Amino acid sequence: MSATIDLNCDLGEGFGRWRLTDDHALLGVVTSANVACGFHAGDPTTMREMCEGAARSDVVIGAQVSYPDLQGFGRRFIDMAPSELADCVVYQIAALDGVARVAGTCVRYVKPHGALYHAVIDHEGQARAVVEAVAAFDPRLMVLGAPASALLAEASRRSMDVVVEGFVDRRYRSDGRLVPRSEPHSSIDVVEDAVRQALDLALHGRVRSIDGAWVRVPARSLCVHSDTPGAVALASDVRRALHDAGVDLASFCAV
Amino acid sequence: MSATIDLNCDLGEGFGRWRLTDDHALLGVVTSANVACGFHAGDPTTMREMCEGAARSDVVIGAQVSYPDLQGFGRRFIDMAPSELADCVVYQIAALDGVARVAGTCVRYVKPHGALYHAVIDHEGQARAVVEAVAAFDPRLMVLGAPASALLAEASRRSMDVVVEGFVDRRYRSDGRLVPRSEPHSSIDVVEDAVRQALDLALHGRVRSIDGAWVRVPARSLCVHSDTPGAVALASDVRRALHDAGVDLASFCAV
Amino acid sequence: MSATIDLNCDLGEGFGRWRLTDDHALLGVVTSANVACGFHAGDPTTMREMCEGAARSDVVIGAQVSYPDLQGFGRRFIDMAPSELADCVVYQIAALDGVARVAGTCVRYVKPHGALYHAVIDHEGQARAVVEAVAAFDPRLMVLGAPASALLAEASRRSMDVVVEGFVDRRYRSDGRLVPRSEPHSSIDVVEDAVRQALDLALHGRVRSIDGAWVRVPARSLCVHSDTPGAVALASDVRRALHDAGVDLASFCAV
Amino acid sequence: MSATIDLNCDLGEGFGRWRLTDDHALLGVVTSANVACGFHAGDPTTMREMCEGAARSDVVIGAQVSYPDLQGFGRRFIDMAPSELADCVVYQIAALDGVARVAGTCVRYVKPHGALYHAVIDHEGQARAVVEAVAAFDPRLMVLGAPASALLAEASRRSMDVVVEGFVDRRYRSDGRLVPRSEPHSSIDVVEDAVRQALDLALHGRVRSIDGAWVRVPARSLCVHSDTPGAVALASDVRRALHDAGVDLASFCAV
Repeated sequence: MSATIDLNCDLGEGFGRWRLTDDHALLGVVTSANVACGFHAGDPTTMREMCEGAARSDVVIGAQVSYPDLQGFGRRFIDMAPSELADCVVYQIAALDGVARVAGTCVRYVKPHGALYHAVIDHEGQARAVVEAVAAFDPRLMVLGAPASALLAEASRRSMDVVVEGFVDRRYRSDGRLVPRSEPHSSIDVVEDAVRQALDLALHGRVRSIDGAWVRVPARSLCVHSDTPGAVALASDVRRALHDAGVDLASFCAV
Repeated sequence: MSATIDLNCDLGEGFGRWRLTDDHALLGVVTSANVACGFHAGDPTTMREMCEGAARSDVVIGAQVSYPDLQGFGRRFIDMAPSELADCVVYQIAALDGVARVAGTCVRYVKPHGALYHAVIDHEGQARAVVEAVAAFDPRLMVLGAPASALLAEASRRSMDVVVEGFVDRRYRSDGRLVPRSEPHSSIDVVEDAVRQALDLALHGRVRSIDGAWVRVPARSLCVHSDTPGAVALASDVRRALHDAGVDLASFCAV
Repeated sequence: MSATIDLNCDLGEGFGRWRLTDDHALLGVVTSANVACGFHAGDPTTMREMCEGAARSDVVIGAQVSYPDLQGFGRRFIDMAPSELADCVVYQIAALDGVARVAGTCVRYVKPHGALYHAVIDHEGQARAVVEAVAAFDPRLMVLGAPASALLAEASRRSMDVVVEGFVDRRYRSDGRLVPRSEPHSSIDVVEDAVRQALDLALHGRVRSIDGAWVRVPARSLCVHSDTPGAVALASDVRRALHDAGVDLASFCAV
Repeated sequence: MSATIDLNCDLGEGFGRWRLTDDHALLGVVTSANVACGFHAGDPTTMREMCEGAARSDVVIGAQVSYPDLQGFGRRFIDMAPSELADCVVYQIAALDGVARVAGTCVRYVKPHGALYHAVIDHEGQARAVVEAVAAFDPRLMVLGAPASALLAEASRRSMDVVVEGFVDRRYRSDGRLVPRSEPHSSIDVVEDAVRQALDLALHGRVRSIDGAWVRVPARSLCVHSDTPGAVALASDVRRALHDAGVDLASFCAV
């Protein structure tokens, strides 16, 4: 019996003239790409290039939906009315799905970005808005998010397929939440430690918390960062280590 | 034997807090709505409200695609590379189509807006880009534009269904082109004259040019402006006059 | 001995093709104009027209600074880092001041707009950021805001000149705060009642709260809304009633 | 008798999360920084950081004004009405000047960016609009641009101080214009050739054209690109070569 895991990262997070990372190299490493849809990053041309690249590389595409905030890169909480947020989410998924279809593929899942990702862990109104938008667009889309989040709870309640993700290079508290970036030791900077956390997540569904306790994180997908220095190398190391440990790498949509 | 004509106007050309016209009243008058897609006007919430209204009123929805230019309301020519323009057009159609589907309807045609509308009369590269984008998204979408335009020529060449429109309240030159707004007498300000031009277009496929000559305009759709003072009243008058003259009003998609 | 009061309203809150009100009519009524600076409304051309109009009408100009949010019209709280907010405030004041100087006048005060106005009543970090930005640009600028707000407290602490404003058509709670718009009876819809509240504020520095108690509001300026139906008429009625009651109308900058 | 020349480059052309180059390293090399003002790049925080850096490094600040086009990075011609363009230019200079003053410095000159830079070589209406805007804001500001451009002609006509710039790594035609980027050999890729061109410009006010002829380019400033690979190294090499050849490096504002 062999374990299978998905590897996801954010892609297409440039805008116009700007780029954040080597998107094309990452397409050779991950199995799922969270593609920006124009609200925090991702102009139409970048989106097309990402979708074409993902199609060529057999990488599954997810809509990385965000608050409308180019200046803040979607990293600031915006107190939007849930109905307006839902409208923005439908718009983004639809735009990316159309671009993807022209490239011969389509959107298979949705993952909130940045401040919205964190908001929908606890903010019931915004979590419900995101889920309603996804379900209204297409209830077969899967929802990717944090464990024990309002987002995944609401999606499950609607019988949608939800996917928990774990982070290979972020530390966890013993309650299963991430150590906030504002606190020390929030990131794992040693490659070997990140690789070990990836294996713990993929093989055993658990991580060692910052307090030393084992915490259960039932991840079907591992998130690797795309925009940190050495991101491509780390993602490749994680992929190789998983392979060597006998873990199959495959999109959660394919399983 | 009876004539049939479509009545189209621009709708949803507000943004956020701003509105240009009484969109809901116009939905009771026209048969086709050119809905703004977010690039010159039309935030996601406005788009949803327009699509819901159109669905309720049995009004057909077209994607009113534009250059990316909120500040200039899409009225300034932008010298975009054709491939970037095509990407923007796919994005806009896709976004609106997704919003429309959630509202129980869908996009049936595409009409360029403002400066893009005028550019694709003669600008071969941009005209081809728009048509390629429409065809790539869905070649069954119809293309609405000006007679004798590069846009419609290119769409016809690809065996797409094209629709010529006539303007009820703009004057024509004897070569079939509109008198530019920068020149005197470009608009028809007397309601009776606009109604007469609507009848000439619907019944005989022709207009009296500014020089007095008859000009052939094989319009399957009449465009009424939505944002001029008295727009709703004029549209209603045109509709009533067409009805009284025995002209059926119906979307060109339905014929 | 005669009372003197300022009458302020928001102006230039259009963007590109869009307008919210009859800005030019209001310039004939108020003594201070809170001009939008491009972040929630107000493109450069609108800003110039407003500054030229204010210069012609001897109306004092204030910078109506906002979160960067055209789509939401600055009405959504954005959890910006204080330093980024301060940068945005400096940018907005500077841009408007330059436009005003070209028009022969200048910015004399700053008033936060929308969600930022409400945030800086209690949000110490953002209030301090706004005040620091104003002081850094020019400490002689006055700060206009709500009574008992963190904004005015912080500005006072820095020995800046602060101005409390009262609303003529909003109801107050007995703690001196506005009844939130989400609650019933938040607005005063009867013109006579609004005029009476204007007189109570101008002559006695107090309002009758929604509970019937008198509440002290030491307003040096009365805010009239610019974008409600009948806004111009209400502003004119208030101005006339103040005049008839012997109250001098003059900018707080002139006193 | 010694020659003196200015070295300018574009700085602060990031936006929000995005960066194009190592701006701070370049501040150690150039004598003038063309700082983006928010229309093609440059959010308020980036602008502040650039102004603070320039102040610390004794680098003179110019306003790099642009069409409003973040998505296109200001590289697409926009057919704006001259009066609207002028309003945009005033807004941008004013915003940057305010940010600069808070940082203890100020804007000393204006240089159009991208498509606007090229447009105002021949487009009389837009050239006049830019110059009118600069003069209206402050006629003591200097204007930096291409030789034989409508921009500099118009500024000279108004007795403003104009500065011709030469490019160290772009090839010239024998009529003194740049070889367009769309043509082969438009750039000089060999460092030694770029350094030689810098010396030819600084010492003799001439370049060897692509046809082999000497062309007079009376440059008071040399432009080094900031966003090409190796930009910082090339700029440093140019600076060193100029120094070694006995050329003084100093802002044209200081002379």
